[in-house]
Amino acid sequence: MIQKLITKIQKTNAPIVVGLDPMLGYIPEHITKAAYAEYGETPEGAAEAVWQYNKGIVDAVCDLIPAVKPQVAMYEQFGLPGMAAFQKTVDYCKEKGLIVIGDVKRGDIGSTSAAYAAAHLGTVQIGSRSYPAFNEDFATVNPYLGTDGIKPFIDVCNTADKGIFILVKTSNPSSGEFQDRLIDGRALYEWVGEKVAQWGSQSMDGSYSNVGAVVGATYPEQGRILRKLMPNTFILVPGYGAQGGKGAGLVHFFNADGLGAIVNSSRGIIAAYKQEQYAKFGSEHYADASRQAVLDMIADIDGALKRRSL
Amino acid sequence: MIQKLITKIQKTNAPIVVGLDPMLGYIPEHITKAAYAEYGETPEGAAEAVWQYNKGIVDAVCDLIPAVKPQVAMYEQFGLPGMAAFQKTVDYCKEKGLIVIGDVKRGDIGSTSAAYAAAHLGTVQIGSRSYPAFNEDFATVNPYLGTDGIKPFIDVCNTADKGIFILVKTSNPSSGEFQDRLIDGRALYEWVGEKVAQWGSQSMDGSYSNVGAVVGATYPEQGRILRKLMPNTFILVPGYGAQGGKGAGLVHFFNADGLGAIVNSSRGIIAAYKQEQYAKFGSEHYADASRQAVLDMIADIDGALKRRSL
Repeated sequence: MIQKLITKIQKTNAPIVVGLDPMLGYIPEHITKAAYAEYGETPEGAAEAVWQYNKGIVDAVCDLIPAVKPQVAMYEQFGLPGMAAFQKTVDYCKEKGLIVIGDVKRGDIGSTSAAYAAAHLGTVQIGSRSYPAFNEDFATVNPYLGTDGIKPFIDVCNTADKGIFILVKTSNPSSGEFQDRLIDGRALYEWVGEKVAQWGSQSMDGSYSNVGAVVGATYPEQGRILRKLMPNTFILVPGYGAQGGKGAGLVHFFNADGLGAIVNSSRGIIAAYKQEQYAKFGSEHYADASRQAVLDMIADIDGALKRRSL
Repeated sequence: MIQKLITKIQKTNAPIVVGLDPMLGYIPEHITKAAYAEYGETPEGAAEAVWQYNKGIVDAVCDLIPAVKPQVAMYEQFGLPGMAAFQKTVDYCKEKGLIVIGDVKRGDIGSTSAAYAAAHLGTVQIGSRSYPAFNEDFATVNPYLGTDGIKPFIDVCNTADKGIFILVKTSNPSSGEFQDRLIDGRALYEWVGEKVAQWGSQSMDGSYSNVGAVVGATYPEQGRILRKLMPNTFILVPGYGAQGGKGAGLVHFFNADGLGAIVNSSRGIIAAYKQEQYAKFGSEHYADASRQAVLDMIADIDGALKRRSL
């Protein structure tokens, strides 16, 4: 699966992913109004608003980008209608040719991890038949439980040609509380990164592995260390834009081949119309604002990578 | 919320929780046959089988126990019909007076963690109204992202009178890969345990906190250390029975007051009829086998606690 992602990145010249994390507060009023008029101020109404909002953004940016990353929590909070909107969003993005990274941060052990892997990447056997459930292309996974939690996901990567991104160094301010603690002179995130590289060797797809890592844009120095430690690992980099990361700080996440990283922006793209820079588009044309924000982000990262290679 | 759990534990004299982790392979054929006859070998059919199976067990054991712990992965793998069966199970258990621990192991940061907390414990604001989503009483949470990931859950514990159990030392064989690594002479799980105690001080409910910990029955020595390190923390102890834990090894998870721990058994109870010891019940009477297994587990733990106090 990582080769499919690489091909799409090369085709779009955009190592970026748009995070579809639709907080209700981001959604323009004309969309929520219409949804509430039809379904009331209910979970069904919220789910309809989320779906219409997503669809507008996806339609506006799908030719520019290789992938999207819906954050399942934002759908799960609306219960079953929310999960239906998640599924609809995943399916629609795939129809539009986008690769879908389910940001689900699941992690458990043995048969339970296998069930999560089936839920998000693989298929489940029911009697004589088998079915996919949410059927994303990639899922994010938490490493705290060790190999027992990861192995079932790797199995599905291999049988179903899918991929995962394992949390290594997360983008948030308190990520260092545990992840930066030193063990035999090296930070926990380095030990996790080393394990990710080992796990990754069990699911190679060309020169990169289907087992990737999550490393926050907000920690460029740690990104540099991890880039070297995991040469065949693709890094999903959240924290661009709204969380403070900028293109120039991101070059260390990329390998010399210009590959090896994909940078996520969520709020900075999907709620671009709320920023002063894109306010001229107005809330009715929020999707055009998102398109412009994607173009600006591509130029920022492309420029930074070009300056590096000079 | 922890006081509600304690009251129920004292009333039943059973510091145990039944894990509702319904693998299809556990479900007696008469149930799957009937479900597939109605809905086909489909996710809807699987979800119906899961629900009927759960209902039978809950009806048979609800007067004996304080709480159940549905494992959401086992439902999520059947997609939307599976999540509907999860919700139905949660609602039914609450109707029956049981406390519901959603074993969801969620964990993210900031607004995303807040969305998970809303999804599983709190309510979500939609226009002028607010709604719960899956509405469990407790949820399990992963600590890898630090305070940013935990704080939104604690907020909901306080506003909605709910609780969480944070993974500290998990029951699986590879849990030591990261959790046992030494940092300044102490294992990572001790540092996490210490943080859990600190976080817990922000949501006290009587002499225990709404913020609990998960520590595997398979690691009794670590349980003894953590029990001392987190005196006001309730410990959820998975790994009893099928994973190898036994009553006598579990006494160190309890405080001198006989409280402070609740022991989970999943397969050992819900698939009891498949064990030689309970085979005489037959698959038609699987729920009676589960009831007997619950009675035996209560006697095992009660006996161990009584022997300790002599």
